[in-house]
Amino acid sequence: MLNFDYSIPTEIFFGKGQIEVLRKEIKKYGKKVLLVYGKGSIKRSGVYDQVVNILKEENIPFEELSGVEPNPTLETVKKGIKMCRENEIDFLLPVGGGSTIDCSKAIAAGYYYDGDPWDLVIGKAKVKDVLPVGVVLTIAATGSEMDATAVITNMETKQKIGLKDPKIAPKFSIMDPTYTFSVSERQTASGTADIMSHTLENYFSRTKSAYLQDKLAEGVLKTCIKYGVIAVKEPDNYEARANLMWASSLAINGLLSYGKDASWTVHPIEHELSAYYNVTHGIGLAILTPYWMEYVLNDDTLYKFVEYGINVWNIDKNEDEYNIAHRAIEKTKEYFNLLGIPSALREVGIGEENLENMAKGAVKNRGVNGKVGSFVPLAYEDILNIYKKAL
Amino acid sequence: MLNFDYSIPTEIFFGKGQIEVLRKEIKKYGKKVLLVYGKGSIKRSGVYDQVVNILKEENIPFEELSGVEPNPTLETVKKGIKMCRENEIDFLLPVGGGSTIDCSKAIAAGYYYDGDPWDLVIGKAKVKDVLPVGVVLTIAATGSEMDATAVITNMETKQKIGLKDPKIAPKFSIMDPTYTFSVSERQTASGTADIMSHTLENYFSRTKSAYLQDKLAEGVLKTCIKYGVIAVKEPDNYEARANLMWASSLAINGLLSYGKDASWTVHPIEHELSAYYNVTHGIGLAILTPYWMEYVLNDDTLYKFVEYGINVWNIDKNEDEYNIAHRAIEKTKEYFNLLGIPSALREVGIGEENLENMAKGAVKNRGVNGKVGSFVPLAYEDILNIYKKAL
Repeated sequence: MLNFDYSIPTEIFFGKGQIEVLRKEIKKYGKKVLLVYGKGSIKRSGVYDQVVNILKEENIPFEELSGVEPNPTLETVKKGIKMCRENEIDFLLPVGGGSTIDCSKAIAAGYYYDGDPWDLVIGKAKVKDVLPVGVVLTIAATGSEMDATAVITNMETKQKIGLKDPKIAPKFSIMDPTYTFSVSERQTASGTADIMSHTLENYFSRTKSAYLQDKLAEGVLKTCIKYGVIAVKEPDNYEARANLMWASSLAINGLLSYGKDASWTVHPIEHELSAYYNVTHGIGLAILTPYWMEYVLNDDTLYKFVEYGINVWNIDKNEDEYNIAHRAIEKTKEYFNLLGIPSALREVGIGEENLENMAKGAVKNRGVNGKVGSFVPLAYEDILNIYKKAL
Repeated sequence: MLNFDYSIPTEIFFGKGQIEVLRKEIKKYGKKVLLVYGKGSIKRSGVYDQVVNILKEENIPFEELSGVEPNPTLETVKKGIKMCRENEIDFLLPVGGGSTIDCSKAIAAGYYYDGDPWDLVIGKAKVKDVLPVGVVLTIAATGSEMDATAVITNMETKQKIGLKDPKIAPKFSIMDPTYTFSVSERQTASGTADIMSHTLENYFSRTKSAYLQDKLAEGVLKTCIKYGVIAVKEPDNYEARANLMWASSLAINGLLSYGKDASWTVHPIEHELSAYYNVTHGIGLAILTPYWMEYVLNDDTLYKFVEYGINVWNIDKNEDEYNIAHRAIEKTKEYFNLLGIPSALREVGIGEENLENMAKGAVKNRGVNGKVGSFVPLAYEDILNIYKKAL
C-alpha cells in the first residue's frame, strides 16, 4: 500500500426528505446564493420549486445561472464569476449533476482569481481561495458531489480538462435518491457506466498491496452491476437508486484510490470524444472500456483481469487464466449492452474524421512524457488503435 | 437504505515516515501539548523518542500523562483534565492504541465541563466544547483514531460505557504501519478480532437494502481474514500491517454503518467481561462471537448467515442453507483459533461467579427497553445463556 493523505471533508445528507437541511446548512456558509442548474429538468421534476421555496421561506436572497451545458464550458464559468462579483454572491448552490457541480466549483475558484479562469484549469495559476459550494444532487454519475475536481471544456481550444484542488470540494451535498427517479433510461445507464468506469480506473492499478481498496472496489462494482439494470427498468426503485447514488460518491471520493498508483487511462481518452462530439460522457466510457481492456491485456496484466473476472463476475477460478480474462471483458461489454449502451463509436455518431486529432489531444492534454495512464501507459499510436477498434 | 448524515472530518496521514507531518499539524491546533500514552511500549519501540524529538525540535512545550490502562479509567481521565487545566494545555496527543486515544478524547471533552466527567459518559450532561486531539497510532484495533467514541471504565460502579459525540473525533491521525511491527502476537490477534467484530456488528443488521455497505463490510472482513494470520506469523510484513491498520479505521468510522440499523450486540456483552475481569477486549469478542451467532441463528436470520457464509467464507451456495450458516459460524471460530485465541471464557480466567451480574449489567448499561442490540434484541436470559455456552 502506498502512503496517502486522506481528507474527505464534505458532509453528506443522504435520503428522502433531506432537502430540509438546506435551511440551516446554507446559513453556515453564506448570505447570498447563486443557484446553478442546467436546461430545466429540475423544473419538470419539482426539485427547483422545493429549493426556491426554502430559499424564499428562509429569506435567503439568490440569483440564478441556468443553462449549464452537459459538458460545462469556460464561457459559462466566466458568466457565473461575473454574476457573483456583480451581485455580492458568497455561496454557490448547484442543483443537478456533475455538470452543474463542476461549473460551480470552477466559478468558486475563479471568483478569487483576476486572470482567465482557464489558467486555473490548466495549472498555469493556483487556486488561492474559493467561495463555498453546497450541492443538491439529482443524478448518480460523476461523484462530483464528494470530490475535489471540476472538469471544464474550452470550446475554442477543443480541450476538456479537470481542475483539481482540495479547496473546491463541496461543503455539503444533499443526496435524495427520489430526485433521481425522473432520470431517463439513457442517463441512468450512462451514470452507472460512469460510476463503474471510475471504479475500474482505480481498480486496474499496478499497486498489488492495496488489497483492502481492491475489495472495496469490487463491492462498488457488484453494486452497480446489481442495481444499474434495475434502475433502468424500474426508475422508481428506491433501493436501486439509493445504492447507485451512494456508489457514485464512494467510487471517486478517494476511498478506492488512496494508497494506490491510480493514474487514469480511459477518462482522458474519452474526454477527447466529448471535446469533439459532445457525446454523453458515460456512454463514451462504456463503449471504450472493453476495447481498452482487450488492448492492455497481456502476460504482465493478466493477474488483474483474472482477479476481476473471478471476484466481480463470478467466473470459475479453475478455468484457463486467459479465458477468465477474455470472458470478464466480454461480460463487461454485455453488461453495458444490457443497460442499452451500444458497443461502437459509429453508433453514437463518431466516424474516422477526428481520430488522429483526438489521439494527439489525449496525449497532449493528459499525457505524462507522451503517455496516458499508469496501468499500461498508452502512447499516441496505442490510443489511435483503441479508437479504431472501437469504431 | 436508511437516511444518514455522513461526516468523517478526521484527516489521515497514512504510511511509513508520516510522523514528519506532526511538525506542522500540531501548530494548526494548539501551543502546548499533553502527550498521552500507556505503560511504556512506545519507549521500547522508539516511537516515544521520535515524537519527543519532533516536539523539542519544533519548540512545542509538552507535559506527559503516562500509564493509561488497557481499559482507561475515569480516574485517569480526571487526572488528565487536571493536568490540562493546571498547565494551560490546549492540545492532546495520544501515542498508542484505543486506550490512550479514548482517554484523550474523554479528557478533551471533560476539560470544558465543570462537573464529574462521568456525567458526559452516561449522558447526564452534553459535550459543549472539546480540546483538539491528534493521534499517533501504534496498534490496529479499535478504530478510535477515526471515530467519535471514547469507551471509559468506572471501576467504582463496574461500568464500561462509550461516550459518543461528533466533536471528540480526532483532528488528524498519523498511521504508520511500521509502528505496529512490534505489536505482540496476542495483541495482533486481539486487534484483528476487534476489527472483525466491529465489521460483523455493522454487517449483521436487519436493514436488507444497504447492499453497498454490506459489500464493503465483506471486503473488510476478507482483508482481516487474509492478513490477520500473516501479521501474527510475520510481524514485519508491511503489506499485512498496512491493510489491517486501514481496515481498523474503515470498520468503525461510519462507512459500514451509515444507512443501516446497526445497534451493536456483542460489544455491550463483552464490555461486561472487561468491567469484571480486565480481559483483553478483542479476545473477549472473539470468544463470544461464535456463541452469539449460533444463539441468534433462526429462520428469520438465516438469510444473513447464508450471505455471510457464501460471500465471506466462500462456502458453496448450493449447499443446504442451515449447513452454510453453521459452517460459516464454525469457520469464524476456527479462524480465531488460528490466530491463537481460545474458544472458552474459562481459558481466560472467567468462571461462573459473575455471569448473572454481567448479564444484568449488559442490559442495564447498554439495553433499550431491557434488551441489547437490534439484529436479534437480547434480554437478560439470552445474554446469560450466551455467557454460559461460552464458558
